[in-house]
Amino acid sequence: MKVGALLTSAGINIGLCILFLSFYSVLRKQPQNVKVYFGRRIAEQHKRLRGAFILERFVPSPSWIVRSLQCTEDEILSTAGLDAVVFNRVLVFSIRIFSLAAILCLFGVLPLNYFGQDMRHERIPSASLETFTIGNMKEKSIWLWVHCVVLYIISGVACFLLYMEYKRIARLRLLHLVRTTSKHSHFTVLVRGIPKSTHESFNSAVESFFTTYHAPSYLSHQVVYKVGKLQKIVTGAKKVYRKFKHFKGTTVDQTCRSVTYRCCLCGVSSNSFQLLPTEEQERGKPCVKNSNLNLPAEECAAAFVFFKTRYAALIVSKILQTSNPMKWVTSLAPEPKDMYWSNLWLPYKQLWIRRIATLLGSIVFMFIFLVPVTFIQGLTQLEQLQQRLPFLKGLLKGKIMTQLVTGYLPSVILQIFLYTVPPTMMMFATLEGPISHSERKKSACCKVLYFTIWNVFFVNVLSGSAINQLNALSRPKDIPMELARAIPLQATFFTTYVLTSGWASLSSQVMQLFGLIWNFVRKYILRMKEDSDWVLSFPYHTELPKVLLFGLLGFTCSVLAPLILPFLLLYFFLAYIVYRNQFINVYCTRYDTGGLYWPIAYNATIFSLVLTQIICLGVFGLKESPVAAGFTVPLIIITLLFNQYCRMRLLPLFRTFPAQVNMISLTIGRMRFLPL
Amino acid sequence: MKVGALLTSAGINIGLCILFLSFYSVLRKQPQNVKVYFGRRIAEQHKRLRGAFILERFVPSPSWIVRSLQCTEDEILSTAGLDAVVFNRVLVFSIRIFSLAAILCLFGVLPLNYFGQDMRHERIPSASLETFTIGNMKEKSIWLWVHCVVLYIISGVACFLLYMEYKRIARLRLLHLVRTTSKHSHFTVLVRGIPKSTHESFNSAVESFFTTYHAPSYLSHQVVYKVGKLQKIVTGAKKVYRKFKHFKGTTVDQTCRSVTYRCCLCGVSSNSFQLLPTEEQERGKPCVKNSNLNLPAEECAAAFVFFKTRYAALIVSKILQTSNPMKWVTSLAPEPKDMYWSNLWLPYKQLWIRRIATLLGSIVFMFIFLVPVTFIQGLTQLEQLQQRLPFLKGLLKGKIMTQLVTGYLPSVILQIFLYTVPPTMMMFATLEGPISHSERKKSACCKVLYFTIWNVFFVNVLSGSAINQLNALSRPKDIPMELARAIPLQATFFTTYVLTSGWASLSSQVMQLFGLIWNFVRKYILRMKEDSDWVLSFPYHTELPKVLLFGLLGFTCSVLAPLILPFLLLYFFLAYIVYRNQFINVYCTRYDTGGLYWPIAYNATIFSLVLTQIICLGVFGLKESPVAAGFTVPLIIITLLFNQYCRMRLLPLFRTFPAQVNMISLTIGRMRFLPL
Repeated sequence: MKVGALLTSAGINIGLCILFLSFYSVLRKQPQNVKVYFGRRIAEQHKRLRGAFILERFVPSPSWIVRSLQCTEDEILSTAGLDAVVFNRVLVFSIRIFSLAAILCLFGVLPLNYFGQDMRHERIPSASLETFTIGNMKEKSIWLWVHCVVLYIISGVACFLLYMEYKRIARLRLLHLVRTTSKHSHFTVLVRGIPKSTHESFNSAVESFFTTYHAPSYLSHQVVYKVGKLQKIVTGAKKVYRKFKHFKGTTVDQTCRSVTYRCCLCGVSSNSFQLLPTEEQERGKPCVKNSNLNLPAEECAAAFVFFKTRYAALIVSKILQTSNPMKWVTSLAPEPKDMYWSNLWLPYKQLWIRRIATLLGSIVFMFIFLVPVTFIQGLTQLEQLQQRLPFLKGLLKGKIMTQLVTGYLPSVILQIFLYTVPPTMMMFATLEGPISHSERKKSACCKVLYFTIWNVFFVNVLSGSAINQLNALSRPKDIPMELARAIPLQATFFTTYVLTSGWASLSSQVMQLFGLIWNFVRKYILRMKEDSDWVLSFPYHTELPKVLLFGLLGFTCSVLAPLILPFLLLYFFLAYIVYRNQFINVYCTRYDTGGLYWPIAYNATIFSLVLTQIICLGVFGLKESPVAAGFTVPLIIITLLFNQYCRMRLLPLFRTFPAQVNMISLTIGRMRFLPL
Repeated sequence: MKVGALLTSAGINIGLCILFLSFYSVLRKQPQNVKVYFGRRIAEQHKRLRGAFILERFVPSPSWIVRSLQCTEDEILSTAGLDAVVFNRVLVFSIRIFSLAAILCLFGVLPLNYFGQDMRHERIPSASLETFTIGNMKEKSIWLWVHCVVLYIISGVACFLLYMEYKRIARLRLLHLVRTTSKHSHFTVLVRGIPKSTHESFNSAVESFFTTYHAPSYLSHQVVYKVGKLQKIVTGAKKVYRKFKHFKGTTVDQTCRSVTYRCCLCGVSSNSFQLLPTEEQERGKPCVKNSNLNLPAEECAAAFVFFKTRYAALIVSKILQTSNPMKWVTSLAPEPKDMYWSNLWLPYKQLWIRRIATLLGSIVFMFIFLVPVTFIQGLTQLEQLQQRLPFLKGLLKGKIMTQLVTGYLPSVILQIFLYTVPPTMMMFATLEGPISHSERKKSACCKVLYFTIWNVFFVNVLSGSAINQLNALSRPKDIPMELARAIPLQATFFTTYVLTSGWASLSSQVMQLFGLIWNFVRKYILRMKEDSDWVLSFPYHTELPKVLLFGLLGFTCSVLAPLILPFLLLYFFLAYIVYRNQFINVYCTRYDTGGLYWPIAYNATIFSLVLTQIICLGVFGLKESPVAAGFTVPLIIITLLFNQYCRMRLLPLFRTFPAQVNMISLTIGRMRFLPL
């Protein structure tokens, strides 16, 4: 690929991006789209905006960008929760480290690469992109130490920034735990695997167990019941009530919140009781009180147990209860809105086998996905493709056509295939049997991340370098060398991937194309009434892996093929603006993991760093520079030691809550004394 | 190697074994050796036997074997602790499974192997041993399904027996926890990493921390002090006192036991106080009370904290205390006799780096050890050796010499080298920084096990099959095939290894050669007086890996080269007798892990099973039997699922104590209600 083709691609994408963003700035001013672009605000404030027809509505304006940049982290924390802050910090970290990398690599490494060999340079637009990669360096070149030093600086600064972010997010997480003192979930333990007994119901079994072993702190409990036919009637009634309420146009339920667990268990929120006491109470009562009389088979081997203090609940959730670890399994209960009720019905002893099955399922899915990816990367190597499919020769004679096919088409096809991945992984995550929405989304996020790294990065690199050698994986010793040979060659593909996939995904994120179309269809074709509950929560499981993948591409290509960095940096800047805007305006935060996405992001970054170092080691080996290669080995060791230190020092805070914080939480004023 | 050579080797070893055991039965009757062979009893009963000169003393007798077999498991539990029972159960499990394997393989598989190819069979003594392995089967033979079925039966029965043993030992462990209610260690938490502060001593820091956060259950605490000059004087005084006591020949201290923690901290046992009150108390008191006044620099950032209930101590040891996981680190305290005091002085934040360093150290040691092993296995392939070292040709002309060299010498040399391993691994385990003797021995046990499996099994197999191909490890895909090719060939070596290393190690174990010589030197050359404290504890870190290695050899060779099984079975029978005898008579149990060796043995057995199945898969593939190979794959999956189930169901009991058991322990009578 020539520089010209790259610039063509970049031009197309920048144009499209500006077009989309301008479109967005116009569309967001239209009153009929307000549900799409201000979903969170609408849901929060329960009011509809009506705008008059003024010209300003149809003029693109950058005011939303300014507003997005002005909003502080505290605002994001209060409106979108800790997870949004974590996401934001990942973007900030990426911008910081890749700004540094761009400066170092564009001014230090790029000229060395370009003048690496004694050759006649063509005019830059028609120069091959490979001239700018480390592949252009002479073997045994004495200038390779510059690459090594740059690698050291990038790794060192990345580790330092990572540590600072880790500490900052750990502190935020602790503050988050301290502040949320009023939440029921901290006082509640979810017990699963209650043993069946013939002479005792679950209800009395739970009571006798906890009064025997945890008498001082035990408060009360509530066994979970499965949704039966009765429940369906209640749910139906609720829906009818909502429509009814909507016609009345009241906003009465602003102040009433669903606080009773007992009612959430059946999916009936307490405000229904308040507004329709005669009808609903008659139906609601038997559902709660008598369901174990009417429907004895529908009792579930799970219960919520309430304790007097947070610390007691924490202890019970952490200690092994009985001599059978598959029974009386305790864990802190998720928040009511976060509960994934249908999985609560699954027997606990089934879970481990579900976990193994879904793991195998996702691995199989990852490998089946190889088929389209192998086809796609063939498109970047035009000669091979023409040999295989001769009928393409006529089509690919035109120059623009060739540039389009090599520079744009592969990424687009890959992108379309990738759209099927998150729903599939979400399905796998659901089958695993998590009991909360946030846990399910986190699990899906991990799966999508592994999938993306494997299928976008490794398969492209390994199969792209040698189209017929998919058995490269059978020789692990050769993998660093294989990667070292392949990365500079595949850097072109990755650059176009950033241009197309990265920028386009941001445009589609800000445009909310699906939401826009659905809104249009609802309003003007189906003529349905607005429903203010219909607000999405942020899709961390698709967006976080994307951002982390671009981080991986940035690290691995930085020293070897620095031309990717400006495009990547632009992507991160744009992502910073777009995602902040989305957090403030569009998505609603119904549940929160409390910062548990950070360890995922951290692990991915450390993996990227170490992979980069291993690849550089391979490249230095290929270039026969023993000094540079020798100095890279201690860098790998230091990075791994740093990782181990972080795991020891900070990771436990993301797995459990310290006792001290649990005690302090009663007196928030003391939080400033908390050492971290 | 011919059958004749094997029988020669077996004959030599059986003869030696009988000789040694007869020697032992004579030596144990001599009064001067009573310290060597009845160390535990002497230490317990504090009396010396004096026998008259009668002829019976010099006649070998098998009475000790009878006594060893008669002793029950409860006796072993009460005299030698739970770890000894675990060791005993590993032997029982091995005897059971290999009895079954021997019957199935000798009568089912061996004839098939022997008549596997259409060939003229020589007389059995001069038949090659390889005729009895699966290597003699024809390719595509229809009789391979017999091997597959036998593999299924062995795996199934092994899993069943493993599960029963696991459950039995878990129950014993729980009973052990319930019974030891009076032990201080269950009420005590060891706190490490107490933060330094300028305005507060460790003593007051601990007090203020625990009274703030654990006020209801906190009882008292004791900061640990480093051994200073004062301590050396005390220790010296103690030694002098001992000599003094010995001259008096009293057995006064039988009833007095060291119960006070405070005194153990300084290494002074309480009986010293009782017997020499005037001298010792004056010295003992300042050591405890005023050492932080006299020697402020010697205070250690660790403390013992005592709680009112076992449950409170358990909770504090399991919950993360503060927001810095490297400070205020809590764990249940080891028993006083188990404490490894010198490591308590190490700063807690140093430990993770020590662990990594020792891990790397042991891996390097494992690979350096390859040099002698590579030489040794060359001895079994005589032709190659003669080519390399031509001067051996003359020496190896004699037939007996050849048989000796191929059948006996390699194992002996390997054995001598292997003697250096346990001390080295113990050194690594010490450097890791464990705070108890039992933890140190367990860590050394794991290291020796990995070392043994790697260096005795894998290196012999992989390098033995192709002497110049040490790079076989770079292709993991080929390893099953490589193993499948090598195991039948190396079975000869493993059989002689069982004969020499196995039987000889048992003879030397029962003879206590080192102890015998040392006793002789002490008594008749140095003329030292007897010291009843000088009793060894059982060397689990050398004996358990040995037994598990023979288990691995048994499983891997069972179906492929069944001729090893009778020798192995004999080894296990002998081991059963010998080790029980040693537990009852020789070794003293000063500390106990509470059955924590079982998970190690369990993991090694599961590893052996899966490895066997993978090797069989490779062999069936080599023999081009797709049916047998196809049926082996589900077996591997089932075994792994079984392993996962055991890890879920029973392993947590070996990691922590269930709350229920902690509560029940006050009323032992309720233990029978405990479901497992």
